[in-house]
Amino acid sequence: MCFVKSNHLKRLGTQMRFEEQTLEGRNAILEAFRAKKTIDKLFVQKGLNDGPINTILREAKKTDAIIQFTDKERLDQMSQTHNHQGVIAYAAAYEYAEVSEILDKAREKGEAPFIFLLDGIEDPHNLGAIIRTANLCGAHGVIIPKRRAAGLTSTVAKTSAGALNYTPVAKVTNLTATMEDLKKEGLWFVCADMKGESMYKCNLKGAIGLVIGNEGEGVSRLVKEHCDLTASIPMKGDIDSLNASVAAGVLAYEIVRQRMM
Amino acid sequence: MCFVKSNHLKRLGTQMRFEEQTLEGRNAILEAFRAKKTIDKLFVQKGLNDGPINTILREAKKTDAIIQFTDKERLDQMSQTHNHQGVIAYAAAYEYAEVSEILDKAREKGEAPFIFLLDGIEDPHNLGAIIRTANLCGAHGVIIPKRRAAGLTSTVAKTSAGALNYTPVAKVTNLTATMEDLKKEGLWFVCADMKGESMYKCNLKGAIGLVIGNEGEGVSRLVKEHCDLTASIPMKGDIDSLNASVAAGVLAYEIVRQRMM
Repeated sequence: MCFVKSNHLKRLGTQMRFEEQTLEGRNAILEAFRAKKTIDKLFVQKGLNDGPINTILREAKKTDAIIQFTDKERLDQMSQTHNHQGVIAYAAAYEYAEVSEILDKAREKGEAPFIFLLDGIEDPHNLGAIIRTANLCGAHGVIIPKRRAAGLTSTVAKTSAGALNYTPVAKVTNLTATMEDLKKEGLWFVCADMKGESMYKCNLKGAIGLVIGNEGEGVSRLVKEHCDLTASIPMKGDIDSLNASVAAGVLAYEIVRQRMM
Repeated sequence: MCFVKSNHLKRLGTQMRFEEQTLEGRNAILEAFRAKKTIDKLFVQKGLNDGPINTILREAKKTDAIIQFTDKERLDQMSQTHNHQGVIAYAAAYEYAEVSEILDKAREKGEAPFIFLLDGIEDPHNLGAIIRTANLCGAHGVIIPKRRAAGLTSTVAKTSAGALNYTPVAKVTNLTATMEDLKKEGLWFVCADMKGESMYKCNLKGAIGLVIGNEGEGVSRLVKEHCDLTASIPMKGDIDSLNASVAAGVLAYEIVRQRMM
């Protein structure tokens, strides 16, 4: 991976990363499922039971799509093409950014890069809240792994309260390889872990990657080994850990505080 | 309201505030619905259609209870009394604390009181996450208003990750009256608002009540008028505000940091 300065950035401010699409007709919808497009909701005309409809239903059941059987009249009302053939789907279209765009954003602002790396956040509400926090604390982007993590679904877009339109989210195959690439760009990495030193005592200034672990298991061993520093949030209570998005917010704002000093 | 030292506190450490109850039989379940007990799930034997069953279903539909029609065999397996009469319900039982218990908890720990006041948090996931944060940042309790706010449902208990078993939550009729009572106990109040002074510049030490506003509308005018200080979280992004539970966490940990200094 290399981080060539891209021109994509210029579009970032205005370009909508999140738009809902309506698909109509059997071929369009079947193709969308086969192309692994995120379908949020599938409406199927009640009583239809032919081959193509059953194929669509079979594909839909492999996904998280909500399937709703409905009257022909309702579909006719919803249809824009007036040729729905008994099926209408709502698809979510989100555009992932490149890691280079995140670095470009920092460069254009003349700031040291500040990036969130999410090591397997599975709950879309947490992912959305973290993207929202990343935007507000002035981070330049969010990096998520391809596997075992929530992607940019419509729930994430909604929970992000619009932040997904401004804060680039890059999806990478190998989080630790990306971390090593980013280290060459001058970043160093801090991960949140209960066994680390108190965040108030850590030096969190400069070009920084904040690593947030999975809701249940925390930061994975391999990713932790690639971190330069382990910071802990002081825990004075009876239970184990903060909600992942709250922990991300608390750590991010300790970084903000130190940067402002 | 007066804050007489209570003996309830002694029970707080060990007593479970959250327990799931199984109710069986028509009278028990109908009574529970009529007593406005929180029923999470109602199992009804398939095919039953008599008067009492229909009355139970009618009551259930007025609530958030999930209704599931199931075979007699399944109900027989679930039943502990072996006299379920075609209906089994899972009820959630939560005990609200008194404001005095929260003050007692601070006193027993020899700490200046640190209380969260939630001015109309409506999302149970946010309420649960905030109770979780209150526990971990060392706050002594949470106060919520009776009206226009989420109560202690099972979703809240689950999202609190066990914190509801340790952190007392009091429900009050009039938030500002409670604030005035607490001021007599030496507390002063800080509310989160974008127009306030940067939280890093505020003095947040001492006996403190942290007021968190509603997700959409923030802190209400009346409650804001009863606050001593308005603190803001620095916002460097493109969107309006942090998620309510993230904002609560960020502010709470600024209080923790100042207390530790």
